[in-house]
Amino acid sequence: MTVQRYAAVIQLRPEHEATYRSLHTSVWPDVLAALDRANIRNYSIFLRDGLLFSYYEYSGHDHEADAASLAADEATRSWWQLTEPCQQPLATVEHPQWWAPAEEVFHHDGP
Amino acid sequence: MTVQRYAAVIQLRPEHEATYRSLHTSVWPDVLAALDRANIRNYSIFLRDGLLFSYYEYSGHDHEADAASLAADEATRSWWQLTEPCQQPLATVEHPQWWAPAEEVFHHDGP
Repeated sequence: MTVQRYAAVIQLRPEHEATYRSLHTSVWPDVLAALDRANIRNYSIFLRDGLLFSYYEYSGHDHEADAASLAADEATRSWWQLTEPCQQPLATVEHPQWWAPAEEVFHHDGP
Repeated sequence: MTVQRYAAVIQLRPEHEATYRSLHTSVWPDVLAALDRANIRNYSIFLRDGLLFSYYEYSGHDHEADAASLAADEATRSWWQLTEPCQQPLATVEHPQWWAPAEEVFHHDGP
């Protein structure tokens, strides 16, 4: 199975950093289950200097369809109502994107 | 075996973007071999809006020692002489760091 890697960037509003961190120490099980159903694996979010970077591996066969299912999931939509006020999309992001996709310029798997 | 994830950020100098991209389409085999010896796996670099984000998984037992070996590797040092002029460390990076480490605020593996 071929894994596709996805990375994206968004700004974290400094006044909501504590809330955002707190939310992510105990993400709702229904939100995690929706990620699993959407074939999203090895998902991490990193923070540096007010920038959030997400990285995940997609193991399904139709990323667009799985992303649409995720966006329609009730628990996920409720979760985003809490997380989106903490975030500020990059000025260059193309509507209706929220996180700004990053381009892979290098990859090496190793042995 | 426990895998540790490492992510970091650095700026890409716009006037060197073409060079940086070109270098990374055919990274020297000796540089890749040194990464392998340093127990660095699943290594990707992403680009968005002049920011480079690196992500890799460390599968060894002493990240500091492996990083030091990598920094002493002759091919790697030569490689960095080409890549470092393309990069501009974040203003907040702590000397002698070059890439600025990012903090993992969320991780989910999935099934």
